[in-house]
Amino acid sequence: MSGMPHGMTQTAQAQAHIDSSAVAHNLAQIRKRLGTSRARIWATVKADAYGHGIARVLPGLTDADGLAVRDLPEAQACRAAGWRGPILVYGGLHRPDEVALLGASDLHLVISHPAQLAWLQAAAPSAQPPSVWLRYAGDTRLGGFDDADYAQAYGRCAELREQGRIADIGHLNHYARSEDADGIAEADLHFRGAIEGRPGPISTCNCAALLLHPDHAAQTDWIRPGLMLYGASPIPDVHHGPGLGLKPAMRFTARLLATQALRQGAGLGYRGAFTAPRDMRVGLVSCGYADGYPRHAQTGTPLLVDGQPTRLLGRPAMDTLAVDLTDIDVPGPDAVVVLWGDPRNTVESVAASAGTICAALLTGLTPRVAMLGD
Amino acid sequence: MSGMPHGMTQTAQAQAHIDSSAVAHNLAQIRKRLGTSRARIWATVKADAYGHGIARVLPGLTDADGLAVRDLPEAQACRAAGWRGPILVYGGLHRPDEVALLGASDLHLVISHPAQLAWLQAAAPSAQPPSVWLRYAGDTRLGGFDDADYAQAYGRCAELREQGRIADIGHLNHYARSEDADGIAEADLHFRGAIEGRPGPISTCNCAALLLHPDHAAQTDWIRPGLMLYGASPIPDVHHGPGLGLKPAMRFTARLLATQALRQGAGLGYRGAFTAPRDMRVGLVSCGYADGYPRHAQTGTPLLVDGQPTRLLGRPAMDTLAVDLTDIDVPGPDAVVVLWGDPRNTVESVAASAGTICAALLTGLTPRVAMLGD
Repeated sequence: MSGMPHGMTQTAQAQAHIDSSAVAHNLAQIRKRLGTSRARIWATVKADAYGHGIARVLPGLTDADGLAVRDLPEAQACRAAGWRGPILVYGGLHRPDEVALLGASDLHLVISHPAQLAWLQAAAPSAQPPSVWLRYAGDTRLGGFDDADYAQAYGRCAELREQGRIADIGHLNHYARSEDADGIAEADLHFRGAIEGRPGPISTCNCAALLLHPDHAAQTDWIRPGLMLYGASPIPDVHHGPGLGLKPAMRFTARLLATQALRQGAGLGYRGAFTAPRDMRVGLVSCGYADGYPRHAQTGTPLLVDGQPTRLLGRPAMDTLAVDLTDIDVPGPDAVVVLWGDPRNTVESVAASAGTICAALLTGLTPRVAMLGD
Repeated sequence: MSGMPHGMTQTAQAQAHIDSSAVAHNLAQIRKRLGTSRARIWATVKADAYGHGIARVLPGLTDADGLAVRDLPEAQACRAAGWRGPILVYGGLHRPDEVALLGASDLHLVISHPAQLAWLQAAAPSAQPPSVWLRYAGDTRLGGFDDADYAQAYGRCAELREQGRIADIGHLNHYARSEDADGIAEADLHFRGAIEGRPGPISTCNCAALLLHPDHAAQTDWIRPGLMLYGASPIPDVHHGPGLGLKPAMRFTARLLATQALRQGAGLGYRGAFTAPRDMRVGLVSCGYADGYPRHAQTGTPLLVDGQPTRLLGRPAMDTLAVDLTDIDVPGPDAVVVLWGDPRNTVESVAASAGTICAALLTGLTPRVAMLGD
């Protein structure tokens, strides 16, 4: 927007409107699913709150019990935005010198490999030592300790606790198949075997586990929802967010630039990505893959033009999408196009049409998109 | 990096290193292909220089004849970064009030639909009127005038020129199939028919047209290279950038976080995206789809770990990639992983493995990536 005369909106720029009240609503819905359980909630705000912006969503997270981030600089961003509660750091320490960032209170480090324990051992004891969560390798095996190493890692943590270098020790697991009805039973059996006889709070469940295995989630100490906070469903083949009582927290929009006729048989876009089966009216929209709209999206991907449902035609180009205006009221120039984030045009439906997942779309917007808060 | 103690690098963060001298080298290679032609070069820097950053690449573009951007705010960014030469604005005017941005000298507006001419007509004449380039709809049909409307649009431009509202009138086309040996002949015949008898400079050729139809490109007045400036090939099935004498301008890197054993038969990642065919050693890398690494990348996508070629395993997660370290010297912790942008690991090869194009990868990095200049 820099350089634009005062009062002028920059309509070539796609926009993402972030609604923190939707985040608050979604958090309440998540809490409701826990029923009478005393399980607490780590609100997952890694990847800058799944692309929404930590500072923009934070007003919607006052009722969260803690925030979960990737790394210590993200934890610092949460503190800078005003968060005073616990913070879980999934990546723990990325290298030895990050121990210099451990001064802040109420930090919880996920420990995924032995070197991280050595770095904690070498650090000077702190007046406010971090808690740690030992990560079980589980069935994703993207870091963590397997059955052979878990006991030893726990033992080293107990020593660190005795030395005052850490506070509490928790147990963390992550399921590879929590979207499946039979996806966690066996995985959990292994996890319970590894932690048996080793006291500490337990955190194993993401959104999909909460939805499909609610009784299990209710018996853990902390759940770690991400996607549902932002209004999207973790089981998009079965339910979209609105069907789960959720509200989209991001509304991704662009503007209609021009309309044109397309004759029967004419090709549209590079290599004739779409060929008109009849005479059509086409709209050109100021958004493309350089904004983070998925280039894999296919003809038929839904969107709203001036509030009317219609579809993408052909392949997204770098700066431009073509949309079908043939059977809808021709909108005025400069009409708003909703790319995703409306109950009638969910990010789930765009992800399905692009062969990807909601989280990849939400976290994939580029710096070219204007991010707008409440 | 905010909040990190002085001297500490933030290793959880993926980085894109931009080399403006590679851009200068690539521009010289493009000029060389024009031979003795007097065709001039619009260096295409839209989408913030294909994701490299206009200010970072500008030192490499001092020999360009002009810059080409999407919109007037991008043109202003070029001026702010120090560019004093001509600027071509592909999107022309996006709405009436953008005429307020036309004061700057040497602006060239691409005109794609009649309303833009009406907006110019309604604007106050300027001491430094813009030039216009009429866009022919051609065979992409993503905006522009078709055969029925081109003559009338040219006539209106001639009137605007007489009124002093615009300077020169040029002719612009864009081919849907310039990557094909037979991709432009018929398209060009239509274009030549539309502009016949209407004086003005001609610009029709992008990188692919320059490579595959060099004699044709040499006979036009301005070419509009984009991808080759950044070191990537527009015909990646035939040549990668280094094979065309080009140097990658972006080197996208992350760090190795940890290594772990993976037993034969064990699954890795969500839903067991990869299953180990034998006992293996796996590295975990601090990069994921939330950085803009393509989630569609498949097992086998090439990358370099500590300078050694290896491959992706399974699906990229939001924050983490798994890589195969079984048959390479086990690198030290914190080793550099080149995701793309090395002659031995081109962005073309990653794009091929992810079923996409180089431009989508280069323009797709998210704000989470640290952008570093020379």
